Amino acid sequence: MSIYITVDIGGTQIRAAAFPILGYEPLKIKRIATQNSNRSPAERLITLIEDVIPVGEDITAIGVAAPGPLDPSTGVIFETPNIPELHHFPLASYLADHFKKPVALDNDANLAALGEWTIGAGKGHKHLIYLTISTGIGSGIIIDGHLLHGEKGLAPELGHTIVLPNGPRCSCGHRGHLEAVASGPAITRWVQQAIEQGKKSLLSNAQHLTAKTIADAATQGDQLAKAAFERAGTFIGQALADFVHIFNPSVIILGGGVSRSGDLLLPPINTTLRELVIDPNFTNNLTITTAKLGDNAGLIGAKILAQTIKS
Amino acid sequence: MSIYITVDIGGTQIRAAAFPILGYEPLKIKRIATQNSNRSPAERLITLIEDVIPVGEDITAIGVAAPGPLDPSTGVIFETPNIPELHHFPLASYLADHFKKPVALDNDANLAALGEWTIGAGKGHKHLIYLTISTGIGSGIIIDGHLLHGEKGLAPELGHTIVLPNGPRCSCGHRGHLEAVASGPAITRWVQQAIEQGKKSLLSNAQHLTAKTIADAATQGDQLAKAAFERAGTFIGQALADFVHIFNPSVIILGGGVSRSGDLLLPPINTTLRELVIDPNFTNNLTITTAKLGDNAGLIGAKILAQTIKS
Repeated sequence: MSIYITVDIGGTQIRAAAFPILGYEPLKIKRIATQNSNRSPAERLITLIEDVIPVGEDITAIGVAAPGPLDPSTGVIFETPNIPELHHFPLASYLADHFKKPVALDNDANLAALGEWTIGAGKGHKHLIYLTISTGIGSGIIIDGHLLHGEKGLAPELGHTIVLPNGPRCSCGHRGHLEAVASGPAITRWVQQAIEQGKKSLLSNAQHLTAKTIADAATQGDQLAKAAFERAGTFIGQALADFVHIFNPSVIILGGGVSRSGDLLLPPINTTLRELVIDPNFTNNLTITTAKLGDNAGLIGAKILAQTIKS
Repeated sequence: MSIYITVDIGGTQIRAAAFPILGYEPLKIKRIATQNSNRSPAERLITLIEDVIPVGEDITAIGVAAPGPLDPSTGVIFETPNIPELHHFPLASYLADHFKKPVALDNDANLAALGEWTIGAGKGHKHLIYLTISTGIGSGIIIDGHLLHGEKGLAPELGHTIVLPNGPRCSCGHRGHLEAVASGPAITRWVQQAIEQGKKSLLSNAQHLTAKTIADAATQGDQLAKAAFERAGTFIGQALADFVHIFNPSVIILGGGVSRSGDLLLPPINTTLRELVIDPNFTNNLTITTAKLGDNAGLIGAKILAQTIKS
């Protein structure tokens, strides 16, 4: 019998899964910390994949979800701010050489979008925007049933859209990007600064501020915490107005840890988007929803990608 | 013998052309004012088309470039701020009923993009952004050789991207759009206000300020006029940084009257874009250029569209 192997490479952990030929229920999933030994992540990835192959099974193909920017056509990763060992690393050919099997690689957010589109919250749609809001803000876009890659596979970087010129500095070094005002760390930073400036909050004496603890405080009625999500949601809504005018999608899917605070984020997103849209035809019948596939979106998307490899 | 008929509907004039089956040299072009009599533009359009058909020729198909938003799949125009008679008008079926020939319709900026891509400044590229900067700012995008339309054919409205939150009001009624700070009227308005506030300029006593007279003054060294194009170009560069991150194109083409001031606009566009791009891979090998097809871009694009109609 044959299986597909898929891998999802993150800043904190790398996961590998074995999938049957048909369907999207993994047979086995294993994970390792991205950084925890002297051996490089690439070497340990090979061991991880070997661990996940069920006894007696043969690999049909391998699909890899990796942090971008990368070149999906050559399988080379360009930049990996959180994993220096993989800078400019030809990961697809490295795995193909070792396992003697075809390997396809794409951006993790692209593959999550592909997963949501195939069996998740975007099923049945032709024009989809997927935004993953967590430590950073990643994105994947499907146009007429095809992933948007652009000339060198660098598209789409929706998280680096300028929403507040000269605003807070982004992880990329530039200012005022969506990621710099609406990601988990951006929400945390804003609350931290407000507390330092004397704003009252249940969180005033919190040891570890995170988007999750802020969301919990908001749910308990904390005004500052509520205002933090209101602010992030308003910026996301503003950016979505641009994206809706640019792409005219039928569905927008929000994934990532921060989007799990859906009840806090979705109302300001919806209000702002509907206020800023230039013509109601853009939002009539537009679905805005949260992701369905959770943590496995990348692994599932990588399986869909691996299935497209022509042998 | 057979010909193609194409039409370009603008706010001030409607033009019709007859094209031979092969090639993009019009056999005949005629124009009428969009508004100048008691008869509706649609009725007069029929007369215009009849005037342009060479004696003894048979129409193969008709292609129409119209101001958006519109639905290219049904050929219905939704909104035409400058031509109230065509609001929600089923122009494609109206012409098809009259001439008993197949008719295809699309947004004028989409068709100009298609024209530039097929035989103009975007020839040979697969990923193209076309921006037409004149009274408004329109756009067309080609991804992997296909025009971007979105779910209802409303994409892409790049001119309505927010570049200056709470900035000047746009023709659409919203604030801070690219069109509100970088179109011809936006440039004119900014110079007008500066003059009213006492800024010195060759234009201080000008009767009719237009983007063209301001460009002429800038060429003569007028500081205010130069600053006006510098400002517009900086905003266009900022918006292009977003678009480059979103689409990763290999060519950006600037069309429309204002872009003819290329020497004034292109330097600030290039400087700002290169300053704001998050990774040089986005701009390495990216071509930024002005349109080649001039006023006939829409007519030519409409011919390319008409050629795709399956009979």
